[in-house]
Amino acid sequence: MISAMILIAGFTLRGNAQNRNADVYEYPEIVGEFYRHYLTVPDIEGYETLKCDFHVHTVFSDGKVWPDQRVNEAWNEGLDVIAITDHIEYRPHKDIVKSDFNKSFEIAKKRGDQIGMIVIKGSEITRSKPLGHLNALFLQDANKLDVPNELDAIDEAVKQGAYILWNHPGWPNDTSTLYPVHKELIAKNKLHGVEVFNGWESYPKVMDWCNEYRLAPFANTDIHSTSANMYREKFQRPMTLVFAKERSEEGVKEALFAGRTVACFHHHLMGKETFLKEIIQRSLAVRVIDKEKNLIEVHNQSDISHQIRYGKYPYPIALHPNQVFRLNLPSGTDVTFTNCFTGQDKCLVTDIW
Amino acid sequence: MISAMILIAGFTLRGNAQNRNADVYEYPEIVGEFYRHYLTVPDIEGYETLKCDFHVHTVFSDGKVWPDQRVNEAWNEGLDVIAITDHIEYRPHKDIVKSDFNKSFEIAKKRGDQIGMIVIKGSEITRSKPLGHLNALFLQDANKLDVPNELDAIDEAVKQGAYILWNHPGWPNDTSTLYPVHKELIAKNKLHGVEVFNGWESYPKVMDWCNEYRLAPFANTDIHSTSANMYREKFQRPMTLVFAKERSEEGVKEALFAGRTVACFHHHLMGKETFLKEIIQRSLAVRVIDKEKNLIEVHNQSDISHQIRYGKYPYPIALHPNQVFRLNLPSGTDVTFTNCFTGQDKCLVTDIW
Amino acid sequence: MISAMILIAGFTLRGNAQNRNADVYEYPEIVGEFYRHYLTVPDIEGYETLKCDFHVHTVFSDGKVWPDQRVNEAWNEGLDVIAITDHIEYRPHKDIVKSDFNKSFEIAKKRGDQIGMIVIKGSEITRSKPLGHLNALFLQDANKLDVPNELDAIDEAVKQGAYILWNHPGWPNDTSTLYPVHKELIAKNKLHGVEVFNGWESYPKVMDWCNEYRLAPFANTDIHSTSANMYREKFQRPMTLVFAKERSEEGVKEALFAGRTVACFHHHLMGKETFLKEIIQRSLAVRVIDKEKNLIEVHNQSDISHQIRYGKYPYPIALHPNQVFRLNLPSGTDVTFTNCFTGQDKCLVTDIW
Amino acid sequence: MISAMILIAGFTLRGNAQNRNADVYEYPEIVGEFYRHYLTVPDIEGYETLKCDFHVHTVFSDGKVWPDQRVNEAWNEGLDVIAITDHIEYRPHKDIVKSDFNKSFEIAKKRGDQIGMIVIKGSEITRSKPLGHLNALFLQDANKLDVPNELDAIDEAVKQGAYILWNHPGWPNDTSTLYPVHKELIAKNKLHGVEVFNGWESYPKVMDWCNEYRLAPFANTDIHSTSANMYREKFQRPMTLVFAKERSEEGVKEALFAGRTVACFHHHLMGKETFLKEIIQRSLAVRVIDKEKNLIEVHNQSDISHQIRYGKYPYPIALHPNQVFRLNLPSGTDVTFTNCFTGQDKCLVTDIW
Repeated sequence: MISAMILIAGFTLRGNAQNRNADVYEYPEIVGEFYRHYLTVPDIEGYETLKCDFHVHTVFSDGKVWPDQRVNEAWNEGLDVIAITDHIEYRPHKDIVKSDFNKSFEIAKKRGDQIGMIVIKGSEITRSKPLGHLNALFLQDANKLDVPNELDAIDEAVKQGAYILWNHPGWPNDTSTLYPVHKELIAKNKLHGVEVFNGWESYPKVMDWCNEYRLAPFANTDIHSTSANMYREKFQRPMTLVFAKERSEEGVKEALFAGRTVACFHHHLMGKETFLKEIIQRSLAVRVIDKEKNLIEVHNQSDISHQIRYGKYPYPIALHPNQVFRLNLPSGTDVTFTNCFTGQDKCLVTDIW
Repeated sequence: MISAMILIAGFTLRGNAQNRNADVYEYPEIVGEFYRHYLTVPDIEGYETLKCDFHVHTVFSDGKVWPDQRVNEAWNEGLDVIAITDHIEYRPHKDIVKSDFNKSFEIAKKRGDQIGMIVIKGSEITRSKPLGHLNALFLQDANKLDVPNELDAIDEAVKQGAYILWNHPGWPNDTSTLYPVHKELIAKNKLHGVEVFNGWESYPKVMDWCNEYRLAPFANTDIHSTSANMYREKFQRPMTLVFAKERSEEGVKEALFAGRTVACFHHHLMGKETFLKEIIQRSLAVRVIDKEKNLIEVHNQSDISHQIRYGKYPYPIALHPNQVFRLNLPSGTDVTFTNCFTGQDKCLVTDIW
Repeated sequence: MISAMILIAGFTLRGNAQNRNADVYEYPEIVGEFYRHYLTVPDIEGYETLKCDFHVHTVFSDGKVWPDQRVNEAWNEGLDVIAITDHIEYRPHKDIVKSDFNKSFEIAKKRGDQIGMIVIKGSEITRSKPLGHLNALFLQDANKLDVPNELDAIDEAVKQGAYILWNHPGWPNDTSTLYPVHKELIAKNKLHGVEVFNGWESYPKVMDWCNEYRLAPFANTDIHSTSANMYREKFQRPMTLVFAKERSEEGVKEALFAGRTVACFHHHLMGKETFLKEIIQRSLAVRVIDKEKNLIEVHNQSDISHQIRYGKYPYPIALHPNQVFRLNLPSGTDVTFTNCFTGQDKCLVTDIW
Repeated sequence: MISAMILIAGFTLRGNAQNRNADVYEYPEIVGEFYRHYLTVPDIEGYETLKCDFHVHTVFSDGKVWPDQRVNEAWNEGLDVIAITDHIEYRPHKDIVKSDFNKSFEIAKKRGDQIGMIVIKGSEITRSKPLGHLNALFLQDANKLDVPNELDAIDEAVKQGAYILWNHPGWPNDTSTLYPVHKELIAKNKLHGVEVFNGWESYPKVMDWCNEYRLAPFANTDIHSTSANMYREKFQRPMTLVFAKERSEEGVKEALFAGRTVACFHHHLMGKETFLKEIIQRSLAVRVIDKEKNLIEVHNQSDISHQIRYGKYPYPIALHPNQVFRLNLPSGTDVTFTNCFTGQDKCLVTDIW
């Protein structure tokens, strides 16, 4: 009888099954809902680096996922903050999904509170070009944005204290143009940030506008389907890095209005030189092997795969996450980070030791 | 000018960006929606092996995903067939999602037709134990199942030609019990299959019932959240293997009523000995290195990681997908496949050359 | 007592330990020596595709690994054939490693016979440019190649029936030049093949010479360190695909002299159009989803990641191993395989259905 | 001409080739020799955690790899320290490899100095049981250990200041026995440490001896083949964690004699409770989500996959490297780490917040 029971244990424990009781066996190693990927990106001096997606759709507009599941999905994928930004003007499921413009946020917010995710109340003001699409973030009442005139909608959002983000300037006509309406909004402090990356594409020249007009750069998903359907590998999801004084909705809001963001997409960073430099410095640990021969080891402690060009090499070399690269590099030598952009095709150049 | 342009190309092609034009760069390698994992499981003599999930929820009952996205998700994950089986009796979103019981299938079916996925019309008859939950598959009109008496609902489904599947017999009270009502339904040919695996758990003794009562074994997800939220790694999703005469809804239906299924979950197979044996034989290619010394190489050509116990080894050895294992094994020797079950804790034993 | 023993089983089976007995626990899942990666590349009509490395060094010249371990290493990595090609003229360890020029092959051959690997007896004739380095393969007695005059060494090898392979034409001076001495050897049928890839670098214009002078193209490692030290990821090792009538040394020799090779390196193929076309056709399985809309699924059944450019896309799209890609492509449309080269920067163009 | 050149760039950059010049293309992403895996294991209070392998063979005894390549291999795999420990009494290649007993260390040491690896001079005193095999570490002159009497060899090593490590007590007869000779050596302070893990197997009861006799526990490879041939996946290589005051040979020696080691093998730790507890505390970062509900997130910041059993769960749950696990756990609750052993089948029990 003893050996029989041990035999059972041997069989059932094998293949990673676990007895819950004699009738039900468990496979805990496949259960995903309690696990979250941790994406290592360093904090910078005085600020916590929060990973955020400020452009998310649900079944309440033209998305394919229930709002609380958007929170779970972002939690699994290592984000700290999402904004629910369903379209005001475009609701193709409205014959089936009956609700006002605040409901999707409410459902998501409840889930966020349960599992410690910050959920921002937003809406996408969805108009034709030249204005295009704008996300209003930190809204009080989204229903009030459902007005005929597009500038009225923006004014209402601003009245509610909203942060206004210009979405995908290069979409849908493959041309990124800063129209007079945008310049006017910027001049009146009614436009605060802009996507340099949306979904699967970047708009590199928009980073030049960020520098010229003091807009904050964003990388968002504009997610409609599931994240797994959108990105081929786990954790290719783009994100906006926000340097916040505290991990809270207020912390995020303060940081956005202060312009402390970097766009992060598929192992690229796009943003102000000062932020990129500090992320690089805090990501790379240098160990000197032979000072005379300038032989060093560089350990990339972050989860962003950097690409450096230096010395005689005509092409960039990868610094993979959690790997160490051995190279000869005199102290103080400039290195070009070909994955870090401070403007259109303008890469970060800095020394690393 | 030449070098400048080449320099730009060098920068923008780097990091996997691709110029679409000067304003918009693409990152084709992250785009997931057109890619599908191919799970290699061999066909068996005379039949095509289809990978199926017969238990899927959407936002129309208590799921979290829109029906067409369920089709995309299953397509990405390598399935050939899904059944939409929203609850009849449990619709917690019904104050928001207004629809009849056929709608979720219709939305999913339209997407299935577009991308070549077979979508089965089903409903989950959701009652208390002893009856429990039953999926009625291949329905004509799900609305007619919304009747007070549970046996009337089954009769209506049977009248429509439905295949009746008993879901998660071990849930929710951790006890798998074959109640008189099930025996009666089986006797009257109103119960045809049963889940030996649901979601994250298996009910091994239910395989003994399959053998005794000629029920077909199933492994389904009972998916409510996204698949990525449910399973920690891609492709841990369970599936029911169906051996079909043709890749069509009719082909699936004929195979189910004929009992040609094997449950497949996390690199385990559970089903009739004859099916398991044939899958094994067609999965493993043996190359003889030294006939005298009984030295062979076994190449596991399938994507299921098998586990064998043989000879002097007190524990199983893994035959990993797409890998070759070298071993000494006399021809005709019995090998125990500790991941293949023909009954509760009864493993497949067979020779491999 | 029962529960205690089960508890022990629970502990020790956990973490993948397996009892061998009470004093010694095993971890079979970490043991690597019996496992071999299977690299799936299709056979072509009438021939078996063998994966070969014809350029391998050991401690007997300037390599770092004992000859029998070179066989194990190649077996682990999925190769079918290696040639041991220690330098004749360069033996930096000779004060320690005392042996003639045949010994390293003998040690490797013995291991090859044990585990079913084909091991070819070769030597590297190691001279300065213009001649450069040549591998003589299928030698009888390597000692006889140790002669002052380089052309005498080649003649001796040819007398022994050797196949002569020109190694790394672009090394060490970064220029691939076909010198008069090579043209003369080719004219006299004393030079049969040439490396278009060696170690980490390719010489694309050498493929044009292959076409013009009917040389067979090779991709070899020229391995000195361990394979794991040389290549960052497992299975980035280059290989020469040989289309052989039979899996034997004779089969390999016949195929080489008949010129049936393709160079394969880091998911690139370089060779004659006819061979590349057939590999592509047998690698890609097409399923038609909607004939009217030209919607198809392409399943890459090989382990080589192909890259195609077609239609409106300005950049190539990846066809990953064991994945399916869905695309719109009219039957008979030309597709450019940007990873398959038939000459310098000349890609294979073919339809796929 | 411009477009032609860009076209070339487009082709050659594709597939990750990089122009070095027109004749030679590079594939920098496959080059492995400059990359090293970084295995994250926390330091403990006052000490740096060094990853070490104190049992390594080369071609100079019965190994298969040249000594300098052993250094490269260990560097690639993230180790900080190796000891070269060729057998004194067993040199099967001695008819070919002519050298004294110090040579293999000298070759390895030179390479270690070049790339910043600490290389320890050792020898394996290789005798029959009961004594068995012992590694003498930090030798001055290995040649002096080549003496007939086994106890004389130990005395000579001790005279040279060596640290004496008892290797694989459970090999070759599957029985771990502490013989009188070992007790005597311990009593005379001539035996300082013992392998609780060697190669692919552990000797759990030996940890009890470590506790009783104040021996330091070791996990070593005893590597003869290449590491890639020995372990199925990269970084399954076992290692001895040494808590050193400084990263130097002296630092290692001081730590060994002070007994500051933990054996680390395949995501298991075996050692003194105090060390294991500190590694756990510094590996796991806890974030409180909801203090009232005892809801926390645990982030495993180390590269060791821990397994915890707590609360109602009958089986352990995995804390994967760089992932976060969400769980309900009251502050101060005991958790069992089923992968951390302080004795035979005695797991570490500790709270985590």
